[in-house]
Amino acid sequence: MATQTKPVLVVGSAALDTIHTPVGSVDDALGGSCFYFSTAASLFTPVRMVAVIGADFPRKLIDFLNDRDVDLSGLMVEPGETFRWGGKYFDDPNKRETLFTKLGVFENFQPKIPGHFRDTPIVFLGNIHPDLQISVLDQISKPELVILDTMNFWISGTPDRLKEVISRVDALLVNDEEATELTGKINLFEAADALLDMDLQAVVVKKGQHGAILFREGMPPFFAPAYPVRNVKDPTGAGDTFAGGFIGYLANHDLADDNVWRQAIIYGTAVASASVEDFSLDRLKNVNMDELEVRVDELRSMTRF
Amino acid sequence: MATQTKPVLVVGSAALDTIHTPVGSVDDALGGSCFYFSTAASLFTPVRMVAVIGADFPRKLIDFLNDRDVDLSGLMVEPGETFRWGGKYFDDPNKRETLFTKLGVFENFQPKIPGHFRDTPIVFLGNIHPDLQISVLDQISKPELVILDTMNFWISGTPDRLKEVISRVDALLVNDEEATELTGKINLFEAADALLDMDLQAVVVKKGQHGAILFREGMPPFFAPAYPVRNVKDPTGAGDTFAGGFIGYLANHDLADDNVWRQAIIYGTAVASASVEDFSLDRLKNVNMDELEVRVDELRSMTRF
Repeated sequence: MATQTKPVLVVGSAALDTIHTPVGSVDDALGGSCFYFSTAASLFTPVRMVAVIGADFPRKLIDFLNDRDVDLSGLMVEPGETFRWGGKYFDDPNKRETLFTKLGVFENFQPKIPGHFRDTPIVFLGNIHPDLQISVLDQISKPELVILDTMNFWISGTPDRLKEVISRVDALLVNDEEATELTGKINLFEAADALLDMDLQAVVVKKGQHGAILFREGMPPFFAPAYPVRNVKDPTGAGDTFAGGFIGYLANHDLADDNVWRQAIIYGTAVASASVEDFSLDRLKNVNMDELEVRVDELRSMTRF
Repeated sequence: MATQTKPVLVVGSAALDTIHTPVGSVDDALGGSCFYFSTAASLFTPVRMVAVIGADFPRKLIDFLNDRDVDLSGLMVEPGETFRWGGKYFDDPNKRETLFTKLGVFENFQPKIPGHFRDTPIVFLGNIHPDLQISVLDQISKPELVILDTMNFWISGTPDRLKEVISRVDALLVNDEEATELTGKINLFEAADALLDMDLQAVVVKKGQHGAILFREGMPPFFAPAYPVRNVKDPTGAGDTFAGGFIGYLANHDLADDNVWRQAIIYGTAVASASVEDFSLDRLKNVNMDELEVRVDELRSMTRF
């Protein structure tokens, strides 16, 4: 049921990540929500990226995007250093410690939406300061669908601004703790009801190794498991990769069809599962649609009864 | 695909529970793995129970079992007090505190399997001391299927005896932490592989609010969500109720059919979801098959894509 392909606009972070896990390490590897999202979403649909990098950013890291329909005209290069993040994962990949955060040029990031991006029908607001998310919304025409990512840092730090953003978007990606923090409801289903009452048409609760739940007005909740990965090498970016697959799939299918939303969750799950099998974007950038289809079929066989 | 109905033997605890939750309290209410299990399983198949109660046990609490095919000839009454357990749940029903444990007659429980129970084809060994589980296995003819429940207390306290039990059963119910503790594998899928390598034909990992996963030789893992319950009143016994629905369903279906195992997980999920909607067995004892079928259908619609 593919309809016409709609491009997706993503605004978020671009970073160089230093990552230590029990099975290895990488330094200054490609990272940031924009790159994970765009690499996943561009498997499905054209992507338009708005982010900032420093003059020190090694462009060869993103040479692979030349072969994809990713418009980088919104990737601003500023004098100074690229945002760098360092993290360490433990034997349990669900636990991590931040080693350092050097904001660099990201500290003064002011997203500028290029003119030919302003009428993009599908928009993903990556996890950045709510003020910046609002500035993006102020610069664009009303899109068909705006999906928001955020985190506990903004929920507790700038709740009013965040609620303003929520009032202007259509769908929200959160994890279970964030859903509780946003609504005061410990029961996840009550939290989801409360979020839908904030005039959202869809809420996706990401539960990491426990999968994801899609809540959408007028349909029962949809439960998706995580795809079973035995060797998680680097979980960084799994959430943004999931968002890329989810929104990329939505972008070229009929948004009025409930099953399209469920399928989109499954494609997001499949691409995220591949991403964590190697460091940084090393695996993600080589994933192809055939591999995703295999995982989607496996996920179907793992949930049918 | 119902085949002939096979009876199930359950050996476990019988208790009087005192429970405090944010929405209310009960004192000396019916509890213990045997009663939760039997009430759920007897929706599907005849049940034979072996447990011990004290002379103080109020028989009227189990009058409702008179209307069911539950054979209580193995319910021993000993002089002394019935096992009593007190627990408190918090706003998050996944967190609980044990207030007291008074073993009473349960302290010297020596399961005696009545002669006419000894060839029961399906056996559930509830969560009791591994020595008692071994004594049960020593008293019965080799059944078609023996399913074991246990807990972290025995995994760390009597690991060798527990491993002996595991070597003599066919299937195991554990939660994710217990799977890791038993195998040393943090990754759940590796832990499940290691458990299946202990010559088990099936492993069910219970994840509470995150559902359950069935691992079985020769089939892909099966992921079942928890049924969405908005008002959890009392989570006590959910695991034993799940086991009752799961094993009760297996008992009158073809065990060689992979889909029977998946369906059994879903029926276990459905009956456990009803049980937590009221204190003790107040809701569970009134659940009927029509209500379960509705939840099974809902669970199907919540996982199909």
